[in-house]
Order: sequence, then C-alpha cells, then structure tokens
Amino acid sequence: MGKQPIRTAMKVDLDKPANQQTGLHNRWHPDIPACDTITPGEPVNIECLDWTGGQIKNDDCANDMRDIDLTRVHYLTGPFHIETAEPGDVLVVEILDVQPFAERPWGFTGVFDRNNGGGFLDEFYPKAAKAIWDFEGIFCSSRHIPGVRFAGLIHPGILGCAPSAEVLAEWNRREGELIAAHAGKTVAKPPEPINVHAGSATGDLKAQVGREGARTIPGRPEHGGNCDIKNLSRGSKVYLPVHVPGAKFSVGDLHFSQGDGEISFCGAIEMAGVISLKFTVIKSGVAKMAMKSPIFHAGPVEPQFGPGRYLTFEGFSVDHEGKQHFLDATIAYRQTCLRVIEYLRRYGYDDYQIYLLLSCAPVQGHIAGIVDIPNACTTMGVPMDIFDFDIRPETEVVRKDRGKCAFTSDHK
Amino acid sequence: MGKQPIRTAMKVDLDKPANQQTGLHNRWHPDIPACDTITPGEPVNIECLDWTGGQIKNDDCANDMRDIDLTRVHYLTGPFHIETAEPGDVLVVEILDVQPFAERPWGFTGVFDRNNGGGFLDEFYPKAAKAIWDFEGIFCSSRHIPGVRFAGLIHPGILGCAPSAEVLAEWNRREGELIAAHAGKTVAKPPEPINVHAGSATGDLKAQVGREGARTIPGRPEHGGNCDIKNLSRGSKVYLPVHVPGAKFSVGDLHFSQGDGEISFCGAIEMAGVISLKFTVIKSGVAKMAMKSPIFHAGPVEPQFGPGRYLTFEGFSVDHEGKQHFLDATIAYRQTCLRVIEYLRRYGYDDYQIYLLLSCAPVQGHIAGIVDIPNACTTMGVPMDIFDFDIRPETEVVRKDRGKCAFTSDHK
Amino acid sequence: MGKQPIRTAMKVDLDKPANQQTGLHNRWHPDIPACDTITPGEPVNIECLDWTGGQIKNDDCANDMRDIDLTRVHYLTGPFHIETAEPGDVLVVEILDVQPFAERPWGFTGVFDRNNGGGFLDEFYPKAAKAIWDFEGIFCSSRHIPGVRFAGLIHPGILGCAPSAEVLAEWNRREGELIAAHAGKTVAKPPEPINVHAGSATGDLKAQVGREGARTIPGRPEHGGNCDIKNLSRGSKVYLPVHVPGAKFSVGDLHFSQGDGEISFCGAIEMAGVISLKFTVIKSGVAKMAMKSPIFHAGPVEPQFGPGRYLTFEGFSVDHEGKQHFLDATIAYRQTCLRVIEYLRRYGYDDYQIYLLLSCAPVQGHIAGIVDIPNACTTMGVPMDIFDFDIRPETEVVRKDRGKCAFTSDHK
Amino acid sequence: MGKQPIRTAMKVDLDKPANQQTGLHNRWHPDIPACDTITPGEPVNIECLDWTGGQIKNDDCANDMRDIDLTRVHYLTGPFHIETAEPGDVLVVEILDVQPFAERPWGFTGVFDRNNGGGFLDEFYPKAAKAIWDFEGIFCSSRHIPGVRFAGLIHPGILGCAPSAEVLAEWNRREGELIAAHAGKTVAKPPEPINVHAGSATGDLKAQVGREGARTIPGRPEHGGNCDIKNLSRGSKVYLPVHVPGAKFSVGDLHFSQGDGEISFCGAIEMAGVISLKFTVIKSGVAKMAMKSPIFHAGPVEPQFGPGRYLTFEGFSVDHEGKQHFLDATIAYRQTCLRVIEYLRRYGYDDYQIYLLLSCAPVQGHIAGIVDIPNACTTMGVPMDIFDFDIRPETEVVRKDRGKCAFTSDHK
Repeated sequence: MGKQPIRTAMKVDLDKPANQQTGLHNRWHPDIPACDTITPGEPVNIECLDWTGGQIKNDDCANDMRDIDLTRVHYLTGPFHIETAEPGDVLVVEILDVQPFAERPWGFTGVFDRNNGGGFLDEFYPKAAKAIWDFEGIFCSSRHIPGVRFAGLIHPGILGCAPSAEVLAEWNRREGELIAAHAGKTVAKPPEPINVHAGSATGDLKAQVGREGARTIPGRPEHGGNCDIKNLSRGSKVYLPVHVPGAKFSVGDLHFSQGDGEISFCGAIEMAGVISLKFTVIKSGVAKMAMKSPIFHAGPVEPQFGPGRYLTFEGFSVDHEGKQHFLDATIAYRQTCLRVIEYLRRYGYDDYQIYLLLSCAPVQGHIAGIVDIPNACTTMGVPMDIFDFDIRPETEVVRKDRGKCAFTSDHK
Repeated sequence: MGKQPIRTAMKVDLDKPANQQTGLHNRWHPDIPACDTITPGEPVNIECLDWTGGQIKNDDCANDMRDIDLTRVHYLTGPFHIETAEPGDVLVVEILDVQPFAERPWGFTGVFDRNNGGGFLDEFYPKAAKAIWDFEGIFCSSRHIPGVRFAGLIHPGILGCAPSAEVLAEWNRREGELIAAHAGKTVAKPPEPINVHAGSATGDLKAQVGREGARTIPGRPEHGGNCDIKNLSRGSKVYLPVHVPGAKFSVGDLHFSQGDGEISFCGAIEMAGVISLKFTVIKSGVAKMAMKSPIFHAGPVEPQFGPGRYLTFEGFSVDHEGKQHFLDATIAYRQTCLRVIEYLRRYGYDDYQIYLLLSCAPVQGHIAGIVDIPNACTTMGVPMDIFDFDIRPETEVVRKDRGKCAFTSDHK
Repeated sequence: MGKQPIRTAMKVDLDKPANQQTGLHNRWHPDIPACDTITPGEPVNIECLDWTGGQIKNDDCANDMRDIDLTRVHYLTGPFHIETAEPGDVLVVEILDVQPFAERPWGFTGVFDRNNGGGFLDEFYPKAAKAIWDFEGIFCSSRHIPGVRFAGLIHPGILGCAPSAEVLAEWNRREGELIAAHAGKTVAKPPEPINVHAGSATGDLKAQVGREGARTIPGRPEHGGNCDIKNLSRGSKVYLPVHVPGAKFSVGDLHFSQGDGEISFCGAIEMAGVISLKFTVIKSGVAKMAMKSPIFHAGPVEPQFGPGRYLTFEGFSVDHEGKQHFLDATIAYRQTCLRVIEYLRRYGYDDYQIYLLLSCAPVQGHIAGIVDIPNACTTMGVPMDIFDFDIRPETEVVRKDRGKCAFTSDHK
Repeated sequence: MGKQPIRTAMKVDLDKPANQQTGLHNRWHPDIPACDTITPGEPVNIECLDWTGGQIKNDDCANDMRDIDLTRVHYLTGPFHIETAEPGDVLVVEILDVQPFAERPWGFTGVFDRNNGGGFLDEFYPKAAKAIWDFEGIFCSSRHIPGVRFAGLIHPGILGCAPSAEVLAEWNRREGELIAAHAGKTVAKPPEPINVHAGSATGDLKAQVGREGARTIPGRPEHGGNCDIKNLSRGSKVYLPVHVPGAKFSVGDLHFSQGDGEISFCGAIEMAGVISLKFTVIKSGVAKMAMKSPIFHAGPVEPQFGPGRYLTFEGFSVDHEGKQHFLDATIAYRQTCLRVIEYLRRYGYDDYQIYLLLSCAPVQGHIAGIVDIPNACTTMGVPMDIFDFDIRPETEVVRKDRGKCAFTSDHK
C-alpha cells in the first residue's frame, strides 16, 4: 500500500577508477548510451563522485590540487533515458534532496595553480591551496579555516540533458572560434580524446565521443550543464530543454555549499554523494515556454540569515592598476572579491583562506548597476553569522592566529 | 523632555528650476560650498528632486524621455558639512526612512532613445519609452504595465562624500583614457561646463567646477556615488570613506523601487521625496576597515517573498548572434534579461513593457558562475507575487491585451 | 492624468478634547452616525489619536499611567460608510501604510496599576510604569530602556465594522453572563454611559449608545475590533464581516510596534498617527468564505531577523506556586514571560523594564503544544538583534546599570 | 586526518518489540540505567522508533489508531550518560540533522478516539482517523489528503534530561493533585506499572520505575521533555537543565512535520528515524542563565514562505455555544482551529482531513492578544503554498472530490 524506499537508479564505487564505471561519463555527446531508464513521476536516487573523480585527498598538502589532471574530471552520472521525453519537450527536474555519503563526511575546496586551471583571482593568488571541510549533519567546518561554520546550501553543480548533434556542432563551432581568436591563452576547452570516458561506449563510438564530445567545464545556454548555481538546492525545480529522444539526462559535481561565482574555480565544497530527483515532462515545453536556457525556482529551505545579517561589499569596473573599463561586470566582481579579502584579512586570515571561503560559503553576488557608464557596480554579501566572532564594522578587530590552509609541499 | 520632530536640513522646491536652488548641485567637486552643517547623531530629513530635475511629466507620451537633456540631471542635495569628519574617517550613514512627497504620489521609469542615453538593451530596444507609477502607501502600480503591483524597495540611487582634489584628478585621468581609447563611442562622460550647477558657487569657482567636476552618472570605487544598489533601503547602514574636511556628503536620485542592474538606465521608479538620515563618524575608519570602496548592510524590512517565490532565469556569455565571449558577466546578464522578456511576452506584454518592468521591480540579478571557461553564468530572479496572475511554468498561459507603455508621439 | 494625492478622509486635532471631535467615537454601536463616506478602490488617509486620547505625557513620571481614566479611551476614528457594502458582504481592507505624525515622533508603553487596569503579569508587577519611545524613521528607542533599538512592526490595534443590533445584543448577553458569574472581579466591561462619545450623536441617541454600546477593549469574534494583532502591518489585507448597511468601519489604537500578547495591556508602543487604507467589497462574502471571524494575510515588509536570530523561551501550565493546570495556554504563556524576565534581568534591567519591552518589541508568542495532558507549552521568541549587546547564552553576561523606566512619584 | 563517519550511539530494531530493546525506555526516572556514554563535542547518531513503537500500520484503516494501547507508547532512546555533566549544568544540544530511515519512507498522523486518547477538538471530532504520509526527500504528501505537499519541518517531539528524585517527586505531587481534583476525567497520567519499560533495568528497579516513573506524555517545565515544539528542527540549539550526574539524556518521538499545537494529539507526522546530535556542557549553567525551563534557538533552514504567503485566521475565547470565557487562550485557539476547518472544507475536504492537516502542516499558532478582557485572541497562519490550488479568498472556490482519510472499519 505504502510507497517503497526510493530506488537507486545508479550507484558509484568510490574505490574503483571512474573510467571503469559505465554509469559515468565525462563528455556531452548525444550518442553516449543511456545507463538506465527512469519513469516520470518516480523518485530516484542517483549517486555521484566528486567532480575530480577522487583525485583530492583528505590531508594537509595541496600537491594533489596543484597536480590535478583536468582531463580526468567531471565524471557525471548518466545519461538516463527519461521515458516519454522528446526533443522540444521540457524536462522538469525536482531536486528532492542532496546528501553526502554517510561514510564520507567531508569535502574540499581548492585553488588551482595558475598554470593548471587557475581561477578568478589567479593574477593575485597564483598558487595551489586547499581546505578540507568536515560535515556534521547540515553544518560544515574546516580545520584549514577556523572560526567559520555554516549550514550547507547543498546542490548539484551540473545537471542537463544531452545536446543534439546540431547543438553540439554549434558549441564546437563557437568555442572553436573563440579559441582560434586567442592563440596562446586557454580561453576554452576543445574536444579532447585523452581520458575520454563515454560510459558503456567502446571502440569507434568512444573514439567519436572523444573527437566531438563537448567538455563539461562550461555551462552552456542550450542545456544548462555546469551552471554552478548555488540555489539549486533541496526542493528546487529546474526546467531543462530536451534535445534528444529520452532526454539523456546527466547529473554530477555535487556541492555541499558554494558562493555566487564559485570564484576559486574548484571553489565549492566538492563532495561525493547522492541526489534524489523526480522528473516530469512538459510536452512541447520549449515552444510553450519560449525557452532558450533553463529556468528554475529555489526550494523553501535555503539557509536564511535575514537581510540585515549580510555585510555587503561594493566593487566597480576599475581594475587594481587604476584602469577604467567599460561596464565590465566581471572586472567589477573581481574588485568586489578583493575588497572582501582586504576586510577579512584584518582578523588574521591569510588571503588564500579567504579566497577559499568566499568560493564556498553562501555569499550573495549581485549585479547592482550595469548602466551607469563607465562603471558596472557589483556587490558581495557575506553572511555574518557564519563566523564565530563579530565582523561588524563597529566592533573592534581582534587579530588572531587563524592557522593556514593547505599549501603545496614547496610552499614557503 | 522628548525628542523634537526631525529637522529638515534642506528643502527643495518642485516648482523652481533646479539650477536656481543653492542646496542642489550636479557635479562632484571638493570645492562646492557646503549648504548646511549636520551634527553626528542628529537625525535629519533631506529633500531631493527626482534625478531629471523634473524634466519628465506624468502623461502618456515619451517625447520627454526621448528629448531629455542629460546635462541637466542628477541634481543632488548637498553637500553637507558633517561635523568632526576628516579625511581618512569613515562616515556611517543610517537610512532611517525614504518617502515620496505626499503631494506627488507618482514616479516614472524610462527607456532612453539609443541616440540620447541608451540603455543595457538598446541594441534591441532603441526607442524611448516610459511608464508612470502611482504610489499607494508602500505599493506601486502603473497604468502602463497592468497586472503588476508590488511593495517598493525604496532607496537613494546616489549617496557619497565629495572627492578630494587628488581623487577627482584620478577619476578624470582614468575616465579620460577610456574616452580617448574609444573615439566615436560614448563610453564615459567627461567634465562638462554646460549646465553645471555648483550649489551656491558662482563666478570662477563655478567655472572651475564646470571644467573639473566629475559627472554624477557613474558610481566610483573611491566614494560610491551613483551605485544604484537597490538594497540601500529603509534601515540600511552605509559606510563611506571621507576624502575632504567635513565629508561634504550629498544624496539624491531617490528610487521607489529598482531591480538589480537598473537595466533601462532611467530604470528605477524615479521620484522626488525625502530621505531621513543619521550620521556617525568612525575616526580613521578607512585604515581601520581597510576600506577602498563603500560597504553596507541592509535593513530588516526589505520586501520578503520566500526563496520559492522567485522564478529565476539563466543567461550565459554567448551573445544573440551566437558568438562566444570569455567569462563576460555583462553579456551573460544581457542574455538573462532577454530570456525573461521572451518568457513574459507570452502573456501579452510588449517587450518595452517588460524591459521597463525588469528595470524597476525588485528582481534579483546574481553572478552565478564566473570561472567555468568560457561561459559566465548569471541569473535573474523575478518575484512571482508582483503579478496578479500566475506565471509559474506549469500554469497555462493566458494571453491578454495588456495595453502599452508610453511611446513617443511618432511611434507606430 | 496621474493620481491625486491620497485624500484624508478624517483629520484629528491633537490639541482638542477627543470628545469634541465628531469623527471619533468610543463605543461599538450600529447607530453611531457615519462621519464620512468612502468609495471602494479609493485610497484614503485616516488620522487617529493614540488610544488614551492624549492622557499620557512624554515625561519621566508614570502618575498619568496610574491615574488613567479608562472610561475615556479608545477614541476610534469613524465610523465610515463604505459604499455598496451590505450585511453579509466581506469588507477587504488593505493597509497601505501606517505612520506616526511627523510632528509627534514618539509613543509610549505602559504598565497599569493593578487596581486600575492591571495587566497580564499584575500579580507580580502591580505598579504603574511607563516607557517613552522616540521614533527615527522606521526605528524606535527609549531613554527608559537603554540598549535596545528596533524597526517598528507598525499596525492598527483596532479595526472593524459596527455590529448589528443582534450582534450587539449577543455581546451584551454573553459578557453580562460572565460578569454576573464573577462578582467582585473585573472580568469584562459592560456598557457604560459615563464618558460615552458617540461621534456626532447627541441627545437620546447618544444616551442609547451609552446604555447599549459595546466597550472597545476586547476584540470579538464577529467583527475583530481590538485584536491587537501585531502582523496587521504595512501591506496587510484584512477580511472583515459586514453587519450593517455601509459597514460603518472604524479604526484606531495605532501601534508603532507590539509583541505577541501585548502583555502589559497598554503594552504596544501607543501612538497617534495616520493610516492609509483601501477598501474592496466581496458581495455575500460571509457565506462564500464561511466566515465567522476575520482573516488576513500579512504584508511583505515585516522586519525579518532570520529563524536563527530569535532566542526562544518555553513555558508550561504549571503556575509559579507549583500548581498544575490542565492544558491552560494562558498560564503557560504567563510562565513563558516570566522565564524571559528572569533571563534578561541578569544584564541589569529591572523587571518592569523587561515587562514593558516584551509588551512592545516584536516577540513571537507561539502555542507550541496544546494536547499533551496536562501541560500546555507555549514559547516566546525574542529577536536578539534588537539589543546592542549579545544576549546569546554562550556569551558572558555583563551586568550594567541600565537606568530605569518611569515610575510614579511615590515609587521607592 | 579527516573526521570519521558519525558514530551511531544507539540503534533500534524496527522488527523487534520495543520492550525487548534495552536502549529504549518509556518513563522518566533518575535510576533508569544509562544505555551508553557520549563525550561532549562528539557528534552522534541516535536511532528512534516512532512514538507508538510501531503500533500503526501503513494502510487505509484507522482501527489501529482507535485501538492504540497508550501504555505502550513513547519508547525513548536513552538515557545517555553525557560525560562531565553534573546537576546544575546546562546541557546544550545541537540538532545536526533529523532523517527518516531510508527503508521506511513514510509516517502517519492520527486522530484518537475520544474514549482512548482524544485530542484538542474531540468534542467535535470524536472518532479515530488516520493519514499516511509518504516522504520524497524533504517533501511529504498523503494519499489521504490529496492536494497538499510540503517540505518537512523535521524535529524531535521529545528531548530532555532525566529528573532528579526531587524533581520527579514534585511532578508526581502536583499532577496527582490535579487528578485528585478532577475525579472521573482524564486530566493527567499518573505513574503506571503496566507496560513499563525501564531500559536495561529489571526486577526491583524496574518495579520502582513503574511505581514512580513519570509518564512521557506531557512536557514539563523543569526539563522540557515532550514539548512538541515544531521549530526544534535541523540546526537548532537547545539548552536543557541537568538534574542528575551524567544528565541521562533521552530523545524520541521524531516528527517529519508538525503544526503549532499538534492539535489532534497524535498530530505530527510521526516517524521512526535517526537524529544527529552534538552536546556541549555549560558548567553551572542553570544559575548563570537563571534557567527554570529550556530555551532554544532555531536553525537557519526552516521552510520559508514569506510573510505574505500565510492566510491567517483569528479566534477568540467565546466558545461554540456562545459562552464567554475570561482570557482563555486555549479556548481561543480551539475556535481558531474551527475557523480554518470551516474555510477549507469548502474545497471538498471533510473535516477530519483538515483536522489532520492542521495538526501536521507547518501552521503558525500565535497568541495575538492576551490582555483585552474578556477575550483572548489567537491566530493560526496557514502557509498557502502547501496546496496545489489557490486558497486565497479572492479566488473562486472549486469544490472537488478530495477523497477521504482512513477511518475505522465500522465508519459510515
């Protein structure tokens, strides 16, 4: 009579190489075989590796972060064939829950080396660094960033349906043009046969996926993908365009928490775990909803601090050398981040600790003004209640030894 | 024994030309004479014109918007000499309240003509348009955008202290370089002697302010200014660096409401009214707080909709012609705006109505992801409860005649 | 073209005796003449006296509180004839705004003497006391209760439509029975000809109102009245049953703020001011909505502290002498109040200061459990952010001299 | 280096009789042996049965609810010896998480028969009834109450430390007096040797616990216990007085959700599951905090609907027969509940469905006014977003067949 326990549509094995698990894949391609079939209305659990596929260890050395192999990341779980979904439909994904594995109650936030991955502030912070976060129920804390503890805004970094061949070709065209226009600088990641993992595909099909398959790093307008939207947390509903029969939905890159922008690149609290989902299909939804990119609404259980409990910093599109840029929100947001670092380092944190913290704590990054030429203005709201001390401007600053994050073994 | 009614530190006259009122000025310059003195701890009322100084009429024709004289805008009230404030101090400004004038219960949102002001989407919407908003207590509605009504997130668009001579010189240098590098395109506004209004200054001083004084359009990192931050509403506390003796604080450009980005440029619900402020001085606060740009925290009475009551749209740094840009949050936000317009036009609104609405309703514009090369991802959360119909994707769309906003007399 | 300033439907004169103003009345009776007519859809301002009709002074002595004449209170503004409203309809009242008079920026909270009014804790705190609150925009603070400051949750204590003759008779019957059953104890207030004020009625009609008219102290299920619901603040919508032709709506007893329960009786921050309303009529709404008592929903701008920013105290239906009561939520709530007083007095407040504070600050009083025989459990959540010091249990208590509230001249 | 998975301090076996599991007990008594020891600072998982110990089945018949054996309920998990805790200390309990068992994704809400348990509205709804709730991640829904679905406000109904012998004697004294004064009516539950379960105690000690041990139904001021406070959810911190060495802390009666008051008695969504806790001890905290009853603050992740998304009903202390009661909040709250039932039955629900729903959905029950003699006024706020249809008063009512809840087999 009653409902059964939720079915686990795909398990992962944390002890087995990711590329030997056929329920995983690390490219977007329409021909990667579906690993399972899901019926709309049926809640399912889907297990996921952390986005590095287990390359990062729970220790106090950031060598693993520095030496990460970025061709072996983003092993997504899927693709799943969703019954009745056809191109032109909208796939509604309800995120019923997200949890870390009980037997693995930790995650990590990293800064990549500028020469291997980089990040939003790599001009200022070029070295690799790492913080390990311990989970206690809904809360997390880190021995590498003492003095903070907060409830996770837990969510998947990546979810999306497979591109059609046409959509994939468009991605490769436009990103290829960008790459071509910026020789010598890594501005995008083209298809890459090395370390391709195409689920259960082998031989020619796998080779084709390697040649054509889109990398998973960027989110893309046509399907979402690696949007890294922190608010896709428990109880959210996401509306995704369907491009191939059965949708071929994939998910992965679970985050225990993240700040707007995920600024250090490996910036969320990355974790392995399980996501519980339920699917609905809106027939011909793409046309009905005039949808070109995903939309969503958040769930009701986001951590709430009250509007007066954020300390908010402003930044403008004038760079650190005093150069004026024209309505550039990216530069403005970088300046905003620097303003927060300057403020918080007074308490005894080193800059890398704060860089890591702003990447993963639930900070609010807003585009405040985007029309007042020449300055874009962005803001970052830092929830004051994540600190175990009072960071209000009125309160006397007490500088303390706040330890350090993990650096590489040759750090001095 | 009890407190007296709050003193009005400066009145404005809505029926008198702005440039004849010595308590107003429209440039930032250290030598504009203070119009009054305020004691820290003393609450004061300060009256303000709307930012166009009364150029816009409450009617159904957007000719005034098209023909606006942008050399005659941003008449700020001030500057005020704040006792005890010295360069290097931080001026804490508590926003006790903001109100429209009771006898003038309306405001306006405008789209400028692309050739006279423009806006964030002027490539797509080049013509002038206008919406008049009527105020009823905390609520506003517009005959030009039927079907919406919402509580104002009322705030000043501009507040800041006067620049020092050095700061002003730096502004002119860097903005001048930008202008020089983009000949033929309006990328910034240089000092402009025409229609300069320097408060009570006349003669040589006024001429000097005209030659050197910074325009009020952009916010700037050193002092804030025209930040257009929607959350600086009732109960907020703003921390501003002081650059000259007495701070020379000015305020103006009151908004009944605004969305993140204020995308149509004249995008907030612009109004005349009164702001109630209280000042505190933190001695040597700039060094103590390591402050390069203003910071703030919001008040407790922002309109609250609940996290599940926003419908949120995603946008990416791929432009409308399919060109891929590199981590460009500005382009991503423009795409996000277009996604909302495409969604809402299905209900019968024309695009200009939505463009106006997204400029002034309390939409949340977030920088979601800024590191996943090459795509920046931004989001815009639209509060569903501002509509008197149900805009959830699951609900059948009923297309209705929703009137139109004000256009110019030659609009067809 | 544009809307006119909001019409003031009734003015009051703070310097003239309340009983000489025909737009006021202090009884509920169907025959009190309407003072004005209001059209549905038309926003109106209505001015109100404070509920004591000006008996309380802004000073540091509580003699006025002790000696208050309770036959001369609750001068409501109205009744207003609402066009089209008929018995059986529901009158929808939208509270557009509530404001104190600019020229009178203060209010008061009082404890009555146990022998003249009393209050919820008069067994423990039998003496009169008073606190004066100064308003600064949305905030208030009191020289009599230093260390606290908060945004008002501003609202009317009283609003309702006149009873029909039948409803009035029922009130007098049932309250008369209660009085009869409790000889020697003031358990309710019967009709009272002394100091009756029936608006413009004179002579026989006024005498009849004196003999029959219901007192305004209690809220009553059939019409609402003096509900003292703190959440009927800006932006709320209240649905009221209509009992007589034209509804005969009245309003008054404005509060700058109040806590759940308004425990000290004169417990809100009582003030004179102006309320802005808009009316709609739902024809035959009483039957359609199966309405026996008013319903409402709150506006979106209540002060928000975040769920983790309330410190919440529990109380049970065991009284202070250790007597067990059966599921008595009233006794449980009294115990809850005492628990808060015991906690806060450690900071140096005297009990009367806290008693006054809990009456008027936006504390949340919940019925937590009402079925676990024999104990009812109630809670009171105190917003921690109203204090300028940290009241969390983990923080060391610093006892300070926190002054005192106003007492009577013979207080020692 | 990293933290270990959280230790499970006590497991329960859902298939074994509760009274055969030594980690459970169903009385409060100082001498029940501790089942395990917990170190402050160590997070632990504690498994719990549902409060009926498994008497209720997942089916469509309420016979089990009617025939429940109330001497065999409230098997709490514990008591736990908390290291370093001594009488006079305060035990701080942080609720890290609460989850149902994955293999048992359902719970139940019940109405007891008036002759066996009863409930807050048993005068009106005397028969047994039941609703089964299915869990999908953070959400629940019921085949017995279609049209509603909501996020759980998950929490323990019971937590507390064991009473000392003195405290226990006081409980028995005062509750005995109440019983003695109300012969013929069940007003409280005295000690009851039948079906006593005293953990690992046997023989004389078990007999003593049966003779003296306090029943677990009521919460009590000295220790909390069965407070049924819905807001003690994920992330809450509760401060409990310690009465015996080692605190002897117990917990149980997990609720997936509950409304203020838990009005149908078995009114929460009762479930078996696991709670994750962390303990801290504040030495001499009872005196330091002047604590007579527990206090708490809620966590940051409560479901948030926004203040305008509650439809709130008023009730007064005039009972359904028109009798006036004196400031009786219990009667007022009963009336409030009836007002909601009258409103919601128009949509096609039967009253028992609504009675069940108001017991378990996150409704807000406030004590609005408690001083306006003779009427207490209470309110119940119903979150509108739990319904899949629009319950706003303005919206036309569509009456539908909404099925029925489970009744007994002889129900007609």
